[in-house]
Amino acid sequence: MKVIEIKKSVFADNDMDAAKLRAELRQKGVFLLNLMSSPGSGKTTTLIGTINLLKDKINVAVMEADIDGDVDAVKIKEATGIQSIQLHTGGMCHLDAEMTRQGIDNLDMEGADLVILENVGNLVCPAEFDTGASANAMILSVPEGHDKPLKYPLMFSVCDLVLVNKIDVLPYFDFDMAKCEEYVHMRNPKAEIIPVCAKTGEGLDRFAAWLLEKVKQQKSNK
Amino acid sequence: MKVIEIKKSVFADNDMDAAKLRAELRQKGVFLLNLMSSPGSGKTTTLIGTINLLKDKINVAVMEADIDGDVDAVKIKEATGIQSIQLHTGGMCHLDAEMTRQGIDNLDMEGADLVILENVGNLVCPAEFDTGASANAMILSVPEGHDKPLKYPLMFSVCDLVLVNKIDVLPYFDFDMAKCEEYVHMRNPKAEIIPVCAKTGEGLDRFAAWLLEKVKQQKSNK
Repeated sequence: MKVIEIKKSVFADNDMDAAKLRAELRQKGVFLLNLMSSPGSGKTTTLIGTINLLKDKINVAVMEADIDGDVDAVKIKEATGIQSIQLHTGGMCHLDAEMTRQGIDNLDMEGADLVILENVGNLVCPAEFDTGASANAMILSVPEGHDKPLKYPLMFSVCDLVLVNKIDVLPYFDFDMAKCEEYVHMRNPKAEIIPVCAKTGEGLDRFAAWLLEKVKQQKSNK
Repeated sequence: MKVIEIKKSVFADNDMDAAKLRAELRQKGVFLLNLMSSPGSGKTTTLIGTINLLKDKINVAVMEADIDGDVDAVKIKEATGIQSIQLHTGGMCHLDAEMTRQGIDNLDMEGADLVILENVGNLVCPAEFDTGASANAMILSVPEGHDKPLKYPLMFSVCDLVLVNKIDVLPYFDFDMAKCEEYVHMRNPKAEIIPVCAKTGEGLDRFAAWLLEKVKQQKSNK
């Protein structure tokens, strides 16, 4: 597995770097999704199911960011066959725009339509750094509880899409979907919410359709 | 609910601050536990069940650190009746020793035996900062998966105790307890592992006994 050891950015102005990367990607007609969540919320499994719905329609690549290990990048590659690389953050708890660019520079971008960055599992720091992505999405899994938007306000404020994962175990947890939606919209009234179960595939068609639409918009803005 | 807005430390040497705080607590015979985990792993529920087993035997106080909100501190107070305060980190993803001291300065420490710091839900940054606690513990919940020690090495390296929570839902998740133990011990061979279910109370007697023993040791070291 291709493992990239990312260096900490030496540039101070992350917002400018991010805006530049976002503009470049738009010019190329490539949509970059920054996917965030807590550790263990099911990012990789969600991606595998969704990519398998998309890979015959568009060209998708994945960058897996982790502090250590390459299990996720290997899983994605084996389960979908698409281009997948591992980014090591050297202990860093998040990616910034320059680090994201280092990842993209290591991808074969020829013909790419959609690049997905699986950020470090963390509900705090990744929300503070604009990666230059075209949009932000996050996964909240049922076992984590519906109160998370109250405790991690910034994460929910910066996300365009919230996937509520592991809905198959709703009967075993005290998770109130209506309250979850209320709290998410308290942080970001425009956020879309899609309940999914990555394990069974339920709802992933809606996530795939959302991504297809975003890719189409990015191409038309080119 | 008493809510303390914590200021970011202006001192550079966190390790020295931490060692100083730890020494002071030892001198007072107070054991400070730094409890860490991902968001939603069940820290507060675990604490409530465990404190209710302890509160007639020792004097316990809790500091709840969150970026926003005071739901956890209120929950602890209502469910156990013990002293509980909320620390707001002003967006910070972790606590350092000086921030922990600000919390302790706001507690009534008269007769205190055990103080528990519920750190910000985050598997990355809190592990990087010595809070000055007498010991570190973390909760890994079953839905997060048994592979977490591979991805978040530092967190598992710095913890003396790993509670594996939500064992009631083991039948619904692909969680391998033997592999979990293997991976935890790969990071820290000395880490103790206690499987618990905060919801039903299973295993919390073992956590309570572990804490009582630590408090006893701290008193004898005084």
